Amino acid sequence: MILDGRKTADILNEQLKEKVLRLNRKPRLEIILIGDDPASHTYVNSKLKQASQLGMEVHINHMDESVLEDEVIQLITSFNQNNQVDGILLQLPIPKHLNEVQLMELIDFNKDVDGFHTMNQGLLFQKREGIRPATPKGIMMLLDHYHIPIEGMHVVIIGRSQIVGMPLSKMFIDRNATVTVTHSKTKNLKELTKQADILVAALGKPKFVTKDMVKIGAVVIDVGINRVDNKLVGDVDFDEVAPIASYITPVPKGVGPMTISALAHNLYELYLKGDKNT
Amino acid sequence: MILDGRKTADILNEQLKEKVLRLNRKPRLEIILIGDDPASHTYVNSKLKQASQLGMEVHINHMDESVLEDEVIQLITSFNQNNQVDGILLQLPIPKHLNEVQLMELIDFNKDVDGFHTMNQGLLFQKREGIRPATPKGIMMLLDHYHIPIEGMHVVIIGRSQIVGMPLSKMFIDRNATVTVTHSKTKNLKELTKQADILVAALGKPKFVTKDMVKIGAVVIDVGINRVDNKLVGDVDFDEVAPIASYITPVPKGVGPMTISALAHNLYELYLKGDKNT
Repeated sequence: MILDGRKTADILNEQLKEKVLRLNRKPRLEIILIGDDPASHTYVNSKLKQASQLGMEVHINHMDESVLEDEVIQLITSFNQNNQVDGILLQLPIPKHLNEVQLMELIDFNKDVDGFHTMNQGLLFQKREGIRPATPKGIMMLLDHYHIPIEGMHVVIIGRSQIVGMPLSKMFIDRNATVTVTHSKTKNLKELTKQADILVAALGKPKFVTKDMVKIGAVVIDVGINRVDNKLVGDVDFDEVAPIASYITPVPKGVGPMTISALAHNLYELYLKGDKNT
Repeated sequence: MILDGRKTADILNEQLKEKVLRLNRKPRLEIILIGDDPASHTYVNSKLKQASQLGMEVHINHMDESVLEDEVIQLITSFNQNNQVDGILLQLPIPKHLNEVQLMELIDFNKDVDGFHTMNQGLLFQKREGIRPATPKGIMMLLDHYHIPIEGMHVVIIGRSQIVGMPLSKMFIDRNATVTVTHSKTKNLKELTKQADILVAALGKPKFVTKDMVKIGAVVIDVGINRVDNKLVGDVDFDEVAPIASYITPVPKGVGPMTISALAHNLYELYLKGDKNT
């Protein structure tokens, strides 16, 4: 059975849209986009389109590749201080002459729509309320939408990135799953992935997960978005694996739309948080 | 073979002592101890004794069980502002009328000797420099002292606490181990623990880990400190498991002394960090 991220995101977005309509003002996101990376532009535009459709306000602040760090600092600071701004998103990657860690840290973590700020990552670590990174959050929303049980399941994650693998592992543990994190240094990977009730591929290698790595009846989540011969391909060999999985996400229209939806949900949550504080 | 935490801590402490001697002033730790919990008093005293032996300065600020939150806030604030204070430790648990989260957060994370501050937990999550919680840090120091390889090993951790299980899992992943986190909701626990090259018991149940749960030749780390019939007992049934393990920590004199040593190492690191900043 296909876990349809496109359809699920549409349903959840529709619900979100209704909630947004009832707010006193539109939640507002400021995106800072530096340079001319085509992938970043595409991604930023999809965020803009999505949020606009949901009745949210999004501004793209496009800065030149050669921008001075001080200018970025000033912009972020002004957004931090502006209580009409609910979310700030610094689109990565940024040019190398800029200090990414320092700029990310400068964003008020109460406006950190990406959930990448050290404070938000610490809050996740402590199982406290905070903004969760969009991709792991979107995956949980998708599983919940299909009522897939998580408690007591053995989740095996391939990949240990800060934006997917690691936060996702913590979110699964907090939902009472048993979690194994694997990566490029893992020995006997297949032995581990074959034990997974829920298998998550988030390593960025096209069609890496093959049929022999998957237990019959497993739930398979494919986070990969790889461009091969101008076509989007996941980290899972879908044609091979789909017949033996109980549920599987396609690429595209799987995790991708859920990530964008989770981001919009984060902005909504930031709006509510800010409103409570004023 | 026994992983002798007492002996290892003595060796590492001796090295630390020599480094401390060369500093311009003694690293200074302020411990805040509220109320009369006997276990807390014992623990604080062992920290005091250890640090004094290493040439560090430790003050215990004992406050009454009924202390007002404002008084604790004032004390923490004064230590935050005092650049002669390198580390601040709020001994847990604290009375229920005090807001633990807020007080822990109030401690300057650059003086957070316990590594419990949200910022330090976030820094660990991001694999960045920061203060690591003492027990996981002590475990890594012990394994390293015995030159036990970590990369590519399958580590299975029983327990998902914020101060041991979770930070330890991240520290092992950062050292390129494959990590499985198990807990009270894990099904077929034995099947998982039997796969461990390194098995860590940190759940707080006396003699929980029995021989049938351990692979022959595994490294077994026992974090448990349970008092049974007025005797300290670990989470591992030592007599049963020791004969099949390649390495095993005893209780007492295993992880315990390493935790205290790691705390002193943290204070030393905080001193250096502070000095760099002035």
